[in-house]
Amino acid sequence: MTLNTPFGQASHPAHPYVATNEFHVRYAETDAMGIVNHASYILWMEEARSNYARSRGTDYADFERSGYALAVIDVHAHYRASARYGDLINIRCWVSTLSSRGLTFTYEILNARTNDLLVTGETRHICLNRQGQPSIIPDEARWWMS
Amino acid sequence: MTLNTPFGQASHPAHPYVATNEFHVRYAETDAMGIVNHASYILWMEEARSNYARSRGTDYADFERSGYALAVIDVHAHYRASARYGDLINIRCWVSTLSSRGLTFTYEILNARTNDLLVTGETRHICLNRQGQPSIIPDEARWWMS
Amino acid sequence: MTLNTPFGQASHPAHPYVATNEFHVRYAETDAMGIVNHASYILWMEEARSNYARSRGTDYADFERSGYALAVIDVHAHYRASARYGDLINIRCWVSTLSSRGLTFTYEILNARTNDLLVTGETRHICLNRQGQPSIIPDEARWWMS
Amino acid sequence: MTLNTPFGQASHPAHPYVATNEFHVRYAETDAMGIVNHASYILWMEEARSNYARSRGTDYADFERSGYALAVIDVHAHYRASARYGDLINIRCWVSTLSSRGLTFTYEILNARTNDLLVTGETRHICLNRQGQPSIIPDEARWWMS
Repeated sequence: MTLNTPFGQASHPAHPYVATNEFHVRYAETDAMGIVNHASYILWMEEARSNYARSRGTDYADFERSGYALAVIDVHAHYRASARYGDLINIRCWVSTLSSRGLTFTYEILNARTNDLLVTGETRHICLNRQGQPSIIPDEARWWMS
Repeated sequence: MTLNTPFGQASHPAHPYVATNEFHVRYAETDAMGIVNHASYILWMEEARSNYARSRGTDYADFERSGYALAVIDVHAHYRASARYGDLINIRCWVSTLSSRGLTFTYEILNARTNDLLVTGETRHICLNRQGQPSIIPDEARWWMS
Repeated sequence: MTLNTPFGQASHPAHPYVATNEFHVRYAETDAMGIVNHASYILWMEEARSNYARSRGTDYADFERSGYALAVIDVHAHYRASARYGDLINIRCWVSTLSSRGLTFTYEILNARTNDLLVTGETRHICLNRQGQPSIIPDEARWWMS
Repeated sequence: MTLNTPFGQASHPAHPYVATNEFHVRYAETDAMGIVNHASYILWMEEARSNYARSRGTDYADFERSGYALAVIDVHAHYRASARYGDLINIRCWVSTLSSRGLTFTYEILNARTNDLLVTGETRHICLNRQGQPSIIPDEARWWMS
């Protein structure tokens, strides 16, 4: 599927690569409500992106060392159920839209034991070059985003 | 203005109370990009809500002690410009929608020196009672949300 | 070895159980110096304690559900070398002192690839009961701390 | 008072400048114990150092822009009482030791309403130059540390 977006023509892969990672909820990620603080999920999404690159056989740190960055321009999270300290969390993360200068990651955050869907979210990113200007995603990196 | 929403009939105040707070960017709120990490703004929005209650002459901790909580069900943030360590930040925060069981806070996060708008966002909340069930916002608290 | 301490007679196991866990440095754990913020290591030590309990076949959350907590009364960390985003970290964690009402965890935080020792630390804890009063560590929990 | 230390001859000012800052406990700084997580105090100490520089009429960001950094080499915190969400916190921070290449900050963290002393701590720092090598603290910066 192809769409025109502010960041160029975007493709939506029909069968995207889905990276998953699992980890336990850390104590400091909870708050006085007794459950995980909502901002912790935003940090987990960031780590899910790092894990996505590793799962594809590359390293986001290399991408940055090559002079580029994927700046976050939008974050959305929808909270359906809560997690607690010690819970085993499973995150599914994939590229849902890829355009010439940007991409969108989509996330499903689950309780790995019960398979309950806790949080869904997406983050939209734009590629910046060393001068901090919007840039076309370089071909050397494009493969692991599609 | 009045709207029907999944959380009941919602009113949009024409001239909402706007709370503002100012603080300096902490070093730990930055990341290796040299700028403030995107998740830090989500934490600032949470603190802006606390400050909103204090500005109205009440205390969100009292609301919780009375047996209620405002659970976050949606977070959205749109990033327009970046902040750096030590920058003086100004957040404007107001209730943009209030219904019988929930409300939406809207935020504008600015660089207080340059007045540049850095991030806009909103968070949607539902009122929960001591049993964790959705509940009508009690009258004792409703005044400071309108 | 046995010592008298403010928390009772303390034993220092000659061959303590050492729990290890490995994880990648998250982006948000770095700061504008380009390296991991010093406070992130304190959070990692906390997670190493959680992992210690899991490695022993138990769950710190169960300990809390049984009405007790291990409050932190002292933290010390010594920083020798820095970690960067994406580095694989290895933490070794063990109980270095156990007394009737408290214990000390000791930590070695290493770069798992190079085996460089990055940070050493220890945290001292006191057992609290449901009323928040210092308490003798209950026998049901004592086994996994020795 | 003058002492020989691994970082050179150190002076202990008899009447050091004490910087204070006040702020409210953020919700995310608490954890599921219902009180402030112990690592939050380490972050507050970092912010107290930033505030110290501002109180002296300078800016730690300028120090870094001039090519230097004060790397943390030791952190110690002793926890005496707990803080809760919304509490007004007061931190007193001063330079307790200054040598040619490093310095120690000492902290007292209090509940600003009750004046209860919650946490005491100190952090030891070494001056690094742009190459990340230990360096003599430049004269342009030395004044605000003494």
